[in-house]
Amino acid sequence: MNIRYPNGRKYSKPQKETTAKKGIEYGKRGMTLEEDLNSTNDYYLRQGIAVIHKKPTPVQIVQVDYPKRSSAVIKEAYFRQPSTTDYNGVYKGYYIDFEAKETKNKTSFPLGNFHEHQINHIRGVLAQAGLAFIIIRFSHTDEIFLLEGRFLLEFWNRMLDGGRKSISKEEIEKVGYCLPIGYQPRIDYLKIIDRILQS
Amino acid sequence: MNIRYPNGRKYSKPQKETTAKKGIEYGKRGMTLEEDLNSTNDYYLRQGIAVIHKKPTPVQIVQVDYPKRSSAVIKEAYFRQPSTTDYNGVYKGYYIDFEAKETKNKTSFPLGNFHEHQINHIRGVLAQAGLAFIIIRFSHTDEIFLLEGRFLLEFWNRMLDGGRKSISKEEIEKVGYCLPIGYQPRIDYLKIIDRILQS
Repeated sequence: MNIRYPNGRKYSKPQKETTAKKGIEYGKRGMTLEEDLNSTNDYYLRQGIAVIHKKPTPVQIVQVDYPKRSSAVIKEAYFRQPSTTDYNGVYKGYYIDFEAKETKNKTSFPLGNFHEHQINHIRGVLAQAGLAFIIIRFSHTDEIFLLEGRFLLEFWNRMLDGGRKSISKEEIEKVGYCLPIGYQPRIDYLKIIDRILQS
Repeated sequence: MNIRYPNGRKYSKPQKETTAKKGIEYGKRGMTLEEDLNSTNDYYLRQGIAVIHKKPTPVQIVQVDYPKRSSAVIKEAYFRQPSTTDYNGVYKGYYIDFEAKETKNKTSFPLGNFHEHQINHIRGVLAQAGLAFIIIRFSHTDEIFLLEGRFLLEFWNRMLDGGRKSISKEEIEKVGYCLPIGYQPRIDYLKIIDRILQS
């Protein structure tokens, strides 16, 4: 049975290494950004580098059955809109908080990918001296960027002031950081966080 | 319809203020610890004091229906065991992480309330210089305590070494902090965090 996620995308299991063909590069085998980040966070956790987790999908539970001698079964529930970003945790005493998004667009990242409460959350985290950022993947080219929360807020405010409803890829390349895809960890975003902390 | 949560406790809506009778004190009207903490975190958020949220209940989704012209309905799902604590966030640049538990016991807090992976999570957070703690409520007397993660680990290790499987209330009173119940915020645990940070 296929599991479908709120975005309507079909769930596909991460491909095993033995199924790799045609000399496709590591990390470019149909893994979603979420899978790559979960794998990265698992690596950070196992290596004692950081404790960062994806939050569970928020679900509004309406009906639960309690069959005898077995565990509770949720029979009716609905997806709720998250009120925060998806990932958070701690790294060297720093509070880490980020959202990850993919786009099929080639030249820009649409700001419609964010909800206003997520923007408010990022603003709140920055006000508490937390490290808030987004990780964006351009799926056509498999390019991944880290953009600091303060820049996201700037682009968001530009939109509210009547400006463009997206961030151009040039802008992301200018103020963001390119994240190379590796083997372990797949997306070493904490290396960028180190650079940001040092600057 | 009543919603039942994994702990099997009946879900009871927070009582409205108008239903208060018999001169029961604020905060002692059948609110669960979780409701009190959510209200506290809401207050912190609205006042710009901290950004701390309860994580959604982790659910393994098995079947989702997509009725026409309406939103997705989850038709089969199961409760998963959380791999972390329930609450985390950021306060003045500090990473905050805690678990909240209630007990009907009068003289001790059973360590069976924690899963090993939660203990490992707390250990990991402390290793990353995060602030990890637990908030314990003795429901019979409505007394609430904050216990730092390092003490929880000590008591846990004592159990692993063959010692008692609980923390006595005297021990909690000795090394923990009593949290008075107020109006707004209901459980002002960040006041205790301030004291811990200053010491």
